Amino acid sequence: MIDHPAFTVEPWAVSEERLKLEVLAQTESVFALSNGHIGLRGNLDEGEPFGLPGTYLNGFYETRPLPYAEAGYGYPEDGQTVVNATNGKLIRLLVDDEPFDIRYGELLAHTRSLDLREGVLRRHVRWRSPSGREVEINSTRLVSFVQRSVAAIRFEVKVCDDQPLRIVAQSELVANEPNAIKTKDPRAASALEAPLDAEEQEVHDLRVVLVHRTHKSKLRMAAGMDHVVEKVDGIVTGAEAGPDLGRVWLTAELQPGQTLCFTKFLAYGWSSRRSLPSVRDQVDAAVASAKRTGWNTLVRQQREYLDQFWEHADVEIDGDGELQQAVRFALFHTLQAGARAERRAIPAKGLTGPGYDGHAFWDTETFVLPLLTYTQPTAAADALRWRHATLDLALERAKTLELKGAAFPWRTIRGQECSAYWPAGTAGFHVNADIADAVIRYVRATGDEEFEATTGLELLIHTARLWRSLGHHDHEGRFHIDGVTGPDEYSAIADDNVFTNLMAEQNLRHAALVASKYTDRAQQLGVDVEEIAAWRDAAAAIHVPYDERLKVHPQAAGFTRHKTFAFNGIQYPLLLHVPYFRLYSTQVVKQADLVLALYMRGNHFTAEQKARDFAYYEPITVRDSSLSACAQAVIAAEVGHLDLAYDYFGEAARMDLGDLMDNTRDGLHIASLAGSWIAAVAGFGGMRDFGGDLSFRPRLPNALSRLEFRVRYRNSSIRVRVRHKDVTYELVDGEPLEIVHYNETIVIDKPVTRDWHVEDPGPEPKQPPGREPRHRRVRG
Amino acid sequence: MIDHPAFTVEPWAVSEERLKLEVLAQTESVFALSNGHIGLRGNLDEGEPFGLPGTYLNGFYETRPLPYAEAGYGYPEDGQTVVNATNGKLIRLLVDDEPFDIRYGELLAHTRSLDLREGVLRRHVRWRSPSGREVEINSTRLVSFVQRSVAAIRFEVKVCDDQPLRIVAQSELVANEPNAIKTKDPRAASALEAPLDAEEQEVHDLRVVLVHRTHKSKLRMAAGMDHVVEKVDGIVTGAEAGPDLGRVWLTAELQPGQTLCFTKFLAYGWSSRRSLPSVRDQVDAAVASAKRTGWNTLVRQQREYLDQFWEHADVEIDGDGELQQAVRFALFHTLQAGARAERRAIPAKGLTGPGYDGHAFWDTETFVLPLLTYTQPTAAADALRWRHATLDLALERAKTLELKGAAFPWRTIRGQECSAYWPAGTAGFHVNADIADAVIRYVRATGDEEFEATTGLELLIHTARLWRSLGHHDHEGRFHIDGVTGPDEYSAIADDNVFTNLMAEQNLRHAALVASKYTDRAQQLGVDVEEIAAWRDAAAAIHVPYDERLKVHPQAAGFTRHKTFAFNGIQYPLLLHVPYFRLYSTQVVKQADLVLALYMRGNHFTAEQKARDFAYYEPITVRDSSLSACAQAVIAAEVGHLDLAYDYFGEAARMDLGDLMDNTRDGLHIASLAGSWIAAVAGFGGMRDFGGDLSFRPRLPNALSRLEFRVRYRNSSIRVRVRHKDVTYELVDGEPLEIVHYNETIVIDKPVTRDWHVEDPGPEPKQPPGREPRHRRVRG
Repeated sequence: MIDHPAFTVEPWAVSEERLKLEVLAQTESVFALSNGHIGLRGNLDEGEPFGLPGTYLNGFYETRPLPYAEAGYGYPEDGQTVVNATNGKLIRLLVDDEPFDIRYGELLAHTRSLDLREGVLRRHVRWRSPSGREVEINSTRLVSFVQRSVAAIRFEVKVCDDQPLRIVAQSELVANEPNAIKTKDPRAASALEAPLDAEEQEVHDLRVVLVHRTHKSKLRMAAGMDHVVEKVDGIVTGAEAGPDLGRVWLTAELQPGQTLCFTKFLAYGWSSRRSLPSVRDQVDAAVASAKRTGWNTLVRQQREYLDQFWEHADVEIDGDGELQQAVRFALFHTLQAGARAERRAIPAKGLTGPGYDGHAFWDTETFVLPLLTYTQPTAAADALRWRHATLDLALERAKTLELKGAAFPWRTIRGQECSAYWPAGTAGFHVNADIADAVIRYVRATGDEEFEATTGLELLIHTARLWRSLGHHDHEGRFHIDGVTGPDEYSAIADDNVFTNLMAEQNLRHAALVASKYTDRAQQLGVDVEEIAAWRDAAAAIHVPYDERLKVHPQAAGFTRHKTFAFNGIQYPLLLHVPYFRLYSTQVVKQADLVLALYMRGNHFTAEQKARDFAYYEPITVRDSSLSACAQAVIAAEVGHLDLAYDYFGEAARMDLGDLMDNTRDGLHIASLAGSWIAAVAGFGGMRDFGGDLSFRPRLPNALSRLEFRVRYRNSSIRVRVRHKDVTYELVDGEPLEIVHYNETIVIDKPVTRDWHVEDPGPEPKQPPGREPRHRRVRG
Repeated sequence: MIDHPAFTVEPWAVSEERLKLEVLAQTESVFALSNGHIGLRGNLDEGEPFGLPGTYLNGFYETRPLPYAEAGYGYPEDGQTVVNATNGKLIRLLVDDEPFDIRYGELLAHTRSLDLREGVLRRHVRWRSPSGREVEINSTRLVSFVQRSVAAIRFEVKVCDDQPLRIVAQSELVANEPNAIKTKDPRAASALEAPLDAEEQEVHDLRVVLVHRTHKSKLRMAAGMDHVVEKVDGIVTGAEAGPDLGRVWLTAELQPGQTLCFTKFLAYGWSSRRSLPSVRDQVDAAVASAKRTGWNTLVRQQREYLDQFWEHADVEIDGDGELQQAVRFALFHTLQAGARAERRAIPAKGLTGPGYDGHAFWDTETFVLPLLTYTQPTAAADALRWRHATLDLALERAKTLELKGAAFPWRTIRGQECSAYWPAGTAGFHVNADIADAVIRYVRATGDEEFEATTGLELLIHTARLWRSLGHHDHEGRFHIDGVTGPDEYSAIADDNVFTNLMAEQNLRHAALVASKYTDRAQQLGVDVEEIAAWRDAAAAIHVPYDERLKVHPQAAGFTRHKTFAFNGIQYPLLLHVPYFRLYSTQVVKQADLVLALYMRGNHFTAEQKARDFAYYEPITVRDSSLSACAQAVIAAEVGHLDLAYDYFGEAARMDLGDLMDNTRDGLHIASLAGSWIAAVAGFGGMRDFGGDLSFRPRLPNALSRLEFRVRYRNSSIRVRVRHKDVTYELVDGEPLEIVHYNETIVIDKPVTRDWHVEDPGPEPKQPPGREPRHRRVRG
């Protein structure tokens, strides 16, 4: 946890005023640049010191056998681990005879700043070498949103004292970087030693390309770099390459005040199927194209792309500068994770670190896609098309599990199930209903019938089939789903998990709707009226357990009868300090589960039930998962605990700027960051999209004077401005939109202002000891 | 499975009339000799061919790291695997120039016979070498019940044709034998490569001792052999030793009809703490003692020991010769497993094979100890003293699990938990109540107050503490134990498993009784009246779920509401063909669980409940565990399905002679073998020992005309002879004994005969398809 302010508070940037080595790894994640296709951790240009070196290519992984001391039928045999690909960020510097290394000599100034509007990372250094020579170094780095295979670095070094200075810059490509991660934390990555086999090296002038292939997964990758150097008298350049090292060197004697300046253009290409020449040539071409585009144009394109994004996605906050910054940082990184993923997965950490082995989970559909759906819908569609592209594997997996339809993996890079602990993996079947939910949401928000009739239809049908085969009717006709694990991973293998059952209900019902709408296509998938009827019937009969004595919903059957969890003397996160047996058999909740159901399937609960359920779960929910705060923010806001909602909103948004989970070093928590948008829009905006009109029940804590957000919906783009007592809905673009404000239907064509009012919800519930969210609120 | 009769039917031996190479590994288990301290698989004297070479020393194991792809807090880090120790069975023969190997030349005769009264394995071979020379070989092998470190082999080779013959016999000790076990079956052993490091070799005349130490667990072992050779003219002998090989050779030219005859005395010693000289000298001494005793006396002592055993333990059956043999085989192997274990574990496979890594489970207390308690009580006490000796580890383990008292391991050799899959390991907490149950049974049967006040008291108190901390009271005061796994491993992590709850109830109640009886000693363990009251209270309030609609007991809360298991197209055992998820979430039962509760806690159920429960569970119990048939036999007999009980009795007894689980190669199923005694005595004898008088409700299937068994109880030894319509109770020894026959109290001082009668229980329940027990019954 970063317990001192690490970054200055600014509306459009995240900046560090001096280098703090003790949080270097965290800042590498925070300053990571990515476009969803390529990801560069914010490692220092000169490579060392580092927390975790990292260069990631979406879908580029190595397999490793999953070890089991006691194996079981159907356990996945191989895991997938994201590979630290060839590092092209590296620019080493020799200042006279001293290598530039901030651990030696004197660091006179060191600032880094991630510009959220420009989409670049800037670094400024002023350094005095151990022998007393002084230089200024400025570097600017970008990963292009527009040219998705391309990254670039502008690098300048200037003589700051009054003597001529010998400078050597070595711009490198390094494969198989050593990186020793050894930890017992199951959330970190498994270490891979030298996973890349060298296949070819190519050198032309200042262009170098290295081609490698992963040892076991046999994925081929080419990394290329080329350079444009500003003219300096007497400069000498050269290039060379070996199996794991490509190097371009520039050497010159600079006069006092003189600057050596060059741009490094980087490109990556990778494939599981294409030939070596094909992948190599792709990279040569991408480098050539980037070089032709030039640095300035790359920077301009980046800004234009981001201007577009912010126009549709910005969330403005008055009254809390820190939160304003955090939300924009969150939106920016969510965009970076998903913008150009284009039919590859959006991993839990994006491409910012190796945490969770680079796997994608249900996080994507449930927490990341809402933001993309309502702001950048094409990216949401692409993410779902990635799921669809893995349908064959999911059908196969369902067969292995002796189920019908498709069973999507709990965690994966390429689509194969990689979970080695099935009670908190395979048993988390809700991922399938979460995918269906994302399909339904996307189609509702966009009206994209082409998608609905193809990708959407198939995903809905195959997941509905899964649910129908997973569940069964009891003697009274109720439909039950037994032995599954809901979002809360501190319970497992339980019957009738409310979240799962209600999500499955939606999945079954919508599959029936869509199959009836596109009869011919459904028939091609073997769906007949009997199957549709069976889905409808199961959905209508879904069992939702209820504890009549306590008047709350148990998270799953029997949950509220379990032993209470004794919090005294406990350390967080519980998963590192408490045996599973105790977690599973007591009433302790890792993350919003029933509370997430209150949000996502909100029309199945009365207002009174929501209030009672929230009050019940709040004191037993420890938020050991970063997926929790945003959901708690939404329901806290809905039941009227606005200050508490505000705290959770802050926690979700500041997850990584504050390193609240103490593992930002392994990568950012993209779902929590995206979840801060949910906290803002669904929480304080009160936006719900349960079918019919889009509805809003806006509200605001005292501390904030304005919350303004944008939503794209069908052919409209609207802006919602919530203030202390009222809200204004405004059409930004497109057709007038009918919405529901509280219980009033309104057509937005011109700005419409309405009051809002929230009843006093009574006393605020308590959290488990030590797990109160940081109070942001101004009380009274 | 051995689907043709492999062995001849005889009352007091198991014999093979010819060598069947296809079942060689199975016969090695069947012909294994052991005294509970040392175990020798029935490998051929000449070492090859073999199924699985095996020499086991109780408690001699190697550790190996348990791998986890996703580790959890409190998971055991190291496993323990039984080591194939130095092989001393080996006697190779060179016949002229040809090594004796039954795969070459011509095998004119080959018989092996395990003599259940003599306690020896005899082998007779007549072989014609590829070059046409004919020899007869006779070997007799024993593992001494009387001298527990000693085994011996009498070996004879005779010239059967009319030419002089050059013979070389090489009697060996071989360490680190190669053995390749590779399987995905989790019930087999993990392969160890050369686990023994050589420490010392010693050669004196025909005595050789090898000292080794295991690589990681650092256990030291010495294996020694000495030889007594009968005089033959011109015989030349010698001995030599290297790190992994000790060899004594005898060479002679034999005349036609002449015999070379010698005895090999073997001894083993091992220790985790003692020095090399100490362990080596122990073995030297044991060999010397055996040699002084001599072969004939060893054989006589063995017979005397077994005569004693049979006098108290024999079960006689008229009407089914195969079953008579099987039961004696079963009793003999149970004795072999437990006789001289003496404060080491009795593993699930005894010392007959490496299956389950040589681990001991709850099998010992629940299935093996009843037989030993009522026939060989000192062995039962020793087995419980072994558990007690591991109490420190169990207290430590409970701490790790954040529980009070002692948590004994699910599987272990030395006492540490070695289960790597906790839902079917650590969660099987019932092992603790099973240990308590064995204590209660032992004390009841023997009246051994010295044991009760020390070992018994401590085991009861620390296990009661575990249960009190595991469970909790609900709002109505009922005591629940949640999230545990009962005997049935096809369900896991369930609430209120009836077997577990009722066994815990007994444990808590008896701990309270015993702590009140030995107040001072209990106080020394920190027990006060409040703690005793809390145990009594929890026991009195224990919750036993009941399905009012079906009028049966669910195995655990919610079980009878789960989906039915679809048996069509299924392959057994399910654990190798069905994913855990499906097993856990449906109504399919691996082994008697609720039905075992009907037997072990029988006074908690009415006769009608037993009949209904048995009828409910019978069609869903697949008996994929060898622990099931005997329990089903007992309840089938109790509810009146005598023919079915008879089939199950046969299955339990013939588990390994018939290789019914298809893995006898990995070792015998000692619990099932011991369970056949339970089937006989508790099933057809109807014996129960729930406190108060020992009671009997005898009964017999039509096919059997007599069942006679012996029981030691307190200061009495009785014989019970059940016939078609009546039963005779007879005092064999000791004081008159008061028993209950059905509802009549009888004092046995002279033979007493009573009629018995069983009501027609109605139609027999069906088993899952393909899991009907083999019908032994004569119908009608």
